[in-house]
Amino acid sequence: MTLQPLRVVLAQLNTTVGDIDGNVRKICDAIARARDLGADIVAVPELAITGYPPEDLLLRRSFIDDNLAALQRILPQCGGITAIIGFVDATDDIYNAAAIIHDGALIDVYHKHYLPNYGVFDENRYFQRGQRNQVYRIGGVLVGVSICEDVWYPGDPLQAQALAGAQVSINLNASPYSMGKHAVREHMLATRATDHSVAVCYVNQVGGQDELVFDGGSMVLSERGERLAMARQFEEDLLVADIDVQAVLQTRLHDPRRRKEQAERSAPLHPPIDVSGPSSTPRPALPPSDIAPLADPDEAYAALVLGTRDYVRKNGFHKVIIGLSGGIDSSMVAAIAVDALGKENVLGISMPSRYSSEGSISDSQRLAENLGMEFTVIPIEDGFATMLKTMEPTFAGTEPNVAEENMQARLRGLVAMSIANKFGRMVLTTGNKSEMATGYATLYGDMAGGFAVIKDVPKTLVYRLAHYVNARAGREVIPESVLRKPPSAELRPNQLDQDSLPAYEVLDPILQAYVEEDRSFDEIVRMGYDAATVRRVIDLVNRSEYKRRQSPPCIKITPRAFGRDRRFPIASKYAGY
Amino acid sequence: MTLQPLRVVLAQLNTTVGDIDGNVRKICDAIARARDLGADIVAVPELAITGYPPEDLLLRRSFIDDNLAALQRILPQCGGITAIIGFVDATDDIYNAAAIIHDGALIDVYHKHYLPNYGVFDENRYFQRGQRNQVYRIGGVLVGVSICEDVWYPGDPLQAQALAGAQVSINLNASPYSMGKHAVREHMLATRATDHSVAVCYVNQVGGQDELVFDGGSMVLSERGERLAMARQFEEDLLVADIDVQAVLQTRLHDPRRRKEQAERSAPLHPPIDVSGPSSTPRPALPPSDIAPLADPDEAYAALVLGTRDYVRKNGFHKVIIGLSGGIDSSMVAAIAVDALGKENVLGISMPSRYSSEGSISDSQRLAENLGMEFTVIPIEDGFATMLKTMEPTFAGTEPNVAEENMQARLRGLVAMSIANKFGRMVLTTGNKSEMATGYATLYGDMAGGFAVIKDVPKTLVYRLAHYVNARAGREVIPESVLRKPPSAELRPNQLDQDSLPAYEVLDPILQAYVEEDRSFDEIVRMGYDAATVRRVIDLVNRSEYKRRQSPPCIKITPRAFGRDRRFPIASKYAGY
Repeated sequence: MTLQPLRVVLAQLNTTVGDIDGNVRKICDAIARARDLGADIVAVPELAITGYPPEDLLLRRSFIDDNLAALQRILPQCGGITAIIGFVDATDDIYNAAAIIHDGALIDVYHKHYLPNYGVFDENRYFQRGQRNQVYRIGGVLVGVSICEDVWYPGDPLQAQALAGAQVSINLNASPYSMGKHAVREHMLATRATDHSVAVCYVNQVGGQDELVFDGGSMVLSERGERLAMARQFEEDLLVADIDVQAVLQTRLHDPRRRKEQAERSAPLHPPIDVSGPSSTPRPALPPSDIAPLADPDEAYAALVLGTRDYVRKNGFHKVIIGLSGGIDSSMVAAIAVDALGKENVLGISMPSRYSSEGSISDSQRLAENLGMEFTVIPIEDGFATMLKTMEPTFAGTEPNVAEENMQARLRGLVAMSIANKFGRMVLTTGNKSEMATGYATLYGDMAGGFAVIKDVPKTLVYRLAHYVNARAGREVIPESVLRKPPSAELRPNQLDQDSLPAYEVLDPILQAYVEEDRSFDEIVRMGYDAATVRRVIDLVNRSEYKRRQSPPCIKITPRAFGRDRRFPIASKYAGY
Repeated sequence: MTLQPLRVVLAQLNTTVGDIDGNVRKICDAIARARDLGADIVAVPELAITGYPPEDLLLRRSFIDDNLAALQRILPQCGGITAIIGFVDATDDIYNAAAIIHDGALIDVYHKHYLPNYGVFDENRYFQRGQRNQVYRIGGVLVGVSICEDVWYPGDPLQAQALAGAQVSINLNASPYSMGKHAVREHMLATRATDHSVAVCYVNQVGGQDELVFDGGSMVLSERGERLAMARQFEEDLLVADIDVQAVLQTRLHDPRRRKEQAERSAPLHPPIDVSGPSSTPRPALPPSDIAPLADPDEAYAALVLGTRDYVRKNGFHKVIIGLSGGIDSSMVAAIAVDALGKENVLGISMPSRYSSEGSISDSQRLAENLGMEFTVIPIEDGFATMLKTMEPTFAGTEPNVAEENMQARLRGLVAMSIANKFGRMVLTTGNKSEMATGYATLYGDMAGGFAVIKDVPKTLVYRLAHYVNARAGREVIPESVLRKPPSAELRPNQLDQDSLPAYEVLDPILQAYVEEDRSFDEIVRMGYDAATVRRVIDLVNRSEYKRRQSPPCIKITPRAFGRDRRFPIASKYAGY
């Protein structure tokens, strides 16, 4: 008998942490649509019922119970189809788990073997690791199930499943985005597929969740490692693919390594669990998939847009405020916000003081016109003059210093927050990663706001993204004058960033080496940078941890973002040079 | 031959994370002093070379190398004495380790078996767990070594060490304080001592490190679980104790469980490693130890004082500013700051607006006089009036709301921060745990500052501590009028906390149940609280996570503090009722 291809639907959902009812609705909707498409299997992301990462909600027994009750509500929705659903299992302990459901019955539960506990991940804080491994016969085909990190290891659980006959491997994910990660994933998945001669179905979560954005990009790869189909990145999608199981079996016949591995394995898995027989309904063939991965920097821009949209909306807001300085950073944030939330929901305010250049207002106005967003000017000069007067007795006899500079930034923060409080808007802050790394920002001033859109975007990348925005639009969105002017905080006469910081072309690679790659002072100097500059940059980074600790969350787009990804002591005397 | 008692010195050090040179100086000084005291063994806390917790510094290879080089510098200091030193070992991976050093030679290295990864701990993020277990012959006595979490488990590594003959167990710790924890530790250690008939030497770190304060309270317990000696809590101390090894052997002879355990153990440890023979120098007997654990609330107060002192000083500051409102919270923070830093280093500022009561200034002044600290009045009324005017066009046609209230708090934050920036002081914030839990505070307003002294102190405990401060002084320190007035933010006419929040006597137990004990809505209602009130409190806690995420760090004194101890999503839809 020739097996009909196995039809798999990967439901790339944008869940919300803790919104169990909402997540269940999305899951049930995906199951119904997959059944209509004649699918044998529908799979949803890791922990789809709870949303990922649920963090310390997992310590609440009531939360676990509500998630278990939700799984029970999903069972009756799975008539005539096999559903693989990420949830939190609770037996002797709690597990990051996948339910295998068919025709209304819970057939089995798989527990994640490898629990990531590095970078942004804390899974050992919550979960016990799974031990059992199993293969299922679904639609007459042998299928293995695994969860996220499990597939990043060359051996088990995947190897054991493949050796036990699995022709298809379904892997549930909540894998956060960073630049270039999709290509790394696809390369790794292709290696797994060819190593084990198994077709790999990779379903990922999509959407923003606090500091993380999940890029989706779910994929099906053949047993030869070719990408058969791919879901859209940065949006919800339902990926349908037919897997040619005959081809898998053919490939295996010609794989000598496989027989060797099989011979060496001492403890094979239990026999497969029968879930469902081959589908007899003939199904029309699918059109070829034509979705390709996004290029750089489209990918990073899409991540920032989705991350911003979801943070604002999942926190119950619709409208935002951005303080516009006429500089590249606030212009970039405005462009992202307009794409994320619609121009009618974005208000730009220019808040000039005595040190603001003329371009500060005119360039902001021009940007707002280009973006079609609301714009207003609220000068802080009267407030600044009054507060200088208020502080006169205390400051008598002192020289002007950072105190007076920060006062202006804090008055701007106060103005923006007062509009936020009055009208129920969220303030988006505009600091980039280079500034956040070096502490070149004012706490409670320009750092005041609900979400720090480009906190993980180095200044040199901000420029690249700005050019991308203009090129994509085919017109000037971010004004040319903004792109050309030298960066300045405009908090004292003739101030320039470059008076306080190395040139960004020098600063950014040093920061990448120190912050993202943990390189030592010696290593960075050997990369060709001036020792005194490197020492200064390291000191700036170390000394400004206290500021970052009080900054709003941001979207992680680099391999290491500030926040849960980098856990650094505030009181620390280590310089490393 | 009758064995001379084993003389052990436990060096309760206040290390600083990353200050490897400074920490090594403290360690070497302790070794020298222990040698002068004729000790056989000197032990220092867990990771004493790096300070605890080093967090992501552990991901830097140069940091690990510098710590290994530091260990080499300690070796030659250990002439004629056995030193047990906490450090980071690096072989195939990195380990939380104890070096056993004698006469200048590194005899062996023990790797921590149990890595805590809950609460404030992230040790699985960094370390590999140890597998090997070993007993040492030191001063002719069999000694086991373990690290912190290892001693919290009833079985191995302690049990195996005891069955292999260890008469003394040395346990290195960096165990953070929370209220009542000392008693829990002592109870647990007494159980271990009696279970295994082994004398237990528990050496703890002392001092503040970011969100944590380590209470010290190092102890020596006899094999019968009696406390033989105890170090001072909340200060550096050198605890000297003589352990009667004959008594340990006597007790063992009469312990029938021990023979049974020994018979059942299949894989005994390797033979003991010989480190040093019995000391022949006669040593005068030690005077009996007369230090007893601190009572409640002395203990919590001491924790707040030490935590504040170390946070301020370890970050390079000496002087602080506190905004005084005439209320109990800011009064309490001022009292703690004066005890922590000296009255000459504390500046109180009263910043009245149009809504401030007369008592706001006069009670603050009185408090400052009672504490002997500097005091000044900086009215924000001009700034408030100016900023209201600035916002007039934008706010036209709206009703006064929280925007105008927060404006006052933010102007106060601006004033305090401008003094901080001008004169190099740190601002201490004054919000208590009840406020932080419910979001009853203004971001960038009263929440603006470097350290949140009482962020983990519930309002009802603030009152208890205030009475304690007055009782201890035997006079009025915190004015009676402050203790008596109903709490108010004074941001609008006749405002009272109790208009917005349940009475603190009701609020605090609900918060404890929900935040610290993860109790569900149903459970809390069953405790006897009104369902609508419980629902409201849960909502307030959940919705104000975004504020807490931007608040300064505080000293953890409860079983669960906000911060690294409670990792909660911001965008979360889970209410649990």
